[in-house]
Parts: sequence; C-alpha cells; structure tokens
Amino acid sequence: MRSKTTILGIDPGTQILGFGVISTDGISFNYITSGVLDLRKIGDPFEKLMHISNRVKELIGEYHPDIMAIEAPFYGKNVQSMLKLGRAQGAAISSALVLNVPVFEYAPRKIKLSVTGKGAASKEQVASLLSSILKITINQKFFDSTDALAVAFCHAINGGVTNSTHKSSSTWDSFVKNNPGRIK
Amino acid sequence: MRSKTTILGIDPGTQILGFGVISTDGISFNYITSGVLDLRKIGDPFEKLMHISNRVKELIGEYHPDIMAIEAPFYGKNVQSMLKLGRAQGAAISSALVLNVPVFEYAPRKIKLSVTGKGAASKEQVASLLSSILKITINQKFFDSTDALAVAFCHAINGGVTNSTHKSSSTWDSFVKNNPGRIK
Repeated sequence: MRSKTTILGIDPGTQILGFGVISTDGISFNYITSGVLDLRKIGDPFEKLMHISNRVKELIGEYHPDIMAIEAPFYGKNVQSMLKLGRAQGAAISSALVLNVPVFEYAPRKIKLSVTGKGAASKEQVASLLSSILKITINQKFFDSTDALAVAFCHAINGGVTNSTHKSSSTWDSFVKNNPGRIK
Repeated sequence: MRSKTTILGIDPGTQILGFGVISTDGISFNYITSGVLDLRKIGDPFEKLMHISNRVKELIGEYHPDIMAIEAPFYGKNVQSMLKLGRAQGAAISSALVLNVPVFEYAPRKIKLSVTGKGAASKEQVASLLSSILKITINQKFFDSTDALAVAFCHAINGGVTNSTHKSSSTWDSFVKNNPGRIK
C-alpha cells in the first residue's frame, strides 16, 4: 500500500485567503476541506497578517498536512500591491515553515496546466475539472478556495508524490537536499 | 517614575536582517543590543523566511520588547524585489504579532528626521548622531543594525512613549483602538 500525503493548498491574498486540503496516494485524490478567510473587514494591515498566520497554524494543527503549496504570483501588479501580497505570503509561508511543514510554490500557468491540461484555462474550466477529479460540487462564488484546492492538486501530481519528473521549482530540489527524511 | 519601554527595531531585508534593541522612559534612551542575521549564504528563499521568523521570535523571547518597529520600504524597486521584501517583512511582522508584540512601521525619511533633524540625512550622519544619543561606538560596517537601532529610536520619540503629537501611521491609531490595555 502506498502511503498517503496530505496537502494544504493556500491562496494567500490580501483581501481573501483561500485554503483547501486534499490527500492522495499518488493514484487517487480525496477532498478533505476547503474555505476562505475573509480579511476585507479587517482595516489594519498588520492585523490581517496576524489572522493569516493564525489561520495557517490552525489548519496545520487540524489537518496535519505533509506539505503546503501556494500559488506563486504573477508579476504584473504595481510595486505597492506586490509588497502587500509579499507580506501576506510571507506570513503564510513562515507560519508553515516554523511548524516544519515544507512549502512549495507553483506558477498559475503550471496549476491550470496540471488541472485542465491547458495553461491558459479559465477559472470556470479549472473549477469544473477539479470538481470531477475530487468528486465535489464547487460553488463558483468561492473561487478563492477553488484556487487553493487547485494548487494542492498541482503539487499532488508534480511535487514528488507520483513519479513525475516535472519538478516545478528549485525549492523542491533544495528541500530534497536539505530534508532527506521528509521526502516520501 | 516613568515606566520603561523596550523597543525592538528590525530592518528586514532579503539578504541581511538588522536588529537593535533599546529601552526608554521617554527622556533617556539606553542601548541594549544590536546585530545582524546574515541570510546571504542561505540559498533557498523559503529557508530565509524561516530564519527571519525564528530570529524575531528568539529576540522577543530574550529581550521581551513592548513593541517592534520596522522601516517601511520606499517604493522605487521593481515588483519582483518588492515581493521578496514583502515576504521577508511578512515573516518578521507576523512572528511578532502572534507573540502579542504590536508592530509599527516608519518611512525612511521619518526615521532620518527623528535621529538627525533632517529627512535627507546620510547613513553616516544617522550613525554618528545615534552613536552619541545611545552612547555607543557604531562600526560603519554594520549599517544594517544601525538602521534597526534608528527605527527603534524613531518609535521611541514618535510612537507614544513621549507626548509627541506626531503619530507616524494609522497603525498606531488602530492599535490604540484595538488594544487599549497595551498603550502606556
């Protein structure tokens, strides 16, 4: 029997943080949970970071993921937006790492490609295919949690759970090198 | 007797993290410690974030600061640099906040103005004046820790320790509102 890997996907925006948890044995994929943390009513930007950090830690405490996957940003935004996004990501990433949960990031195109076979797929196409892969009904109101499930799925099929030779980032290689005991 | 406030200043770069701790009763200013965390030999960007987070937590555990002050970035860099800087800041800020240490940020100009009386002062001028205020010898090789001491000093004279009416950011107001028990 192959061992199961639990993957926490996070889409750490500055307004909404999406999260999704799946497990896989490299052959089948099981939906565990998904949801959003709505940060829009929190005015103070530092309080947002605290909430992001606390929610990531809660999710790790509750679902014990083996790894966390996040969507890497595209670089089209302005510098101020990127700083804010970076802060949100930094809060989420460091919260996982200090709990010894390794973090991997995937480009949006790679995520879409993994789910739909097309790097330029629409959000609707991603949601529709993910819904049949994970055997769940996806409410299109909650695209943020769908994005988080999509990045978790992307890791499941690219990040070493299967025998795929497509390693998505240097991070994977450095984790293999630095954390030999953690790689299944 | 006025109560003492201990301030942790952090300059969270992606290559070097500078830190400095001072205490003040609103009249005199005492140097406690300063130093740098050199991140240049760490290749993995996520490992850098983990080190930033851990060092901030260690500093808080060792010196029990009442607040943490960081230098707010200027917006002249490219989006990719800003994302990296944001991640480093997000790791540092969230690490303090989850330990209930409030965080304040100050613009570089405000910091220079606070230390030297001139918003456009050079690094050498900041180091020289800080050195006489804190009665320490500053090695100009360690500007990163000097920047961290400077932002700590900036908070000491602007952040509510004295009766200054110059509040540097909305963060202060929101913390007063949200954390009435924490404001001295």
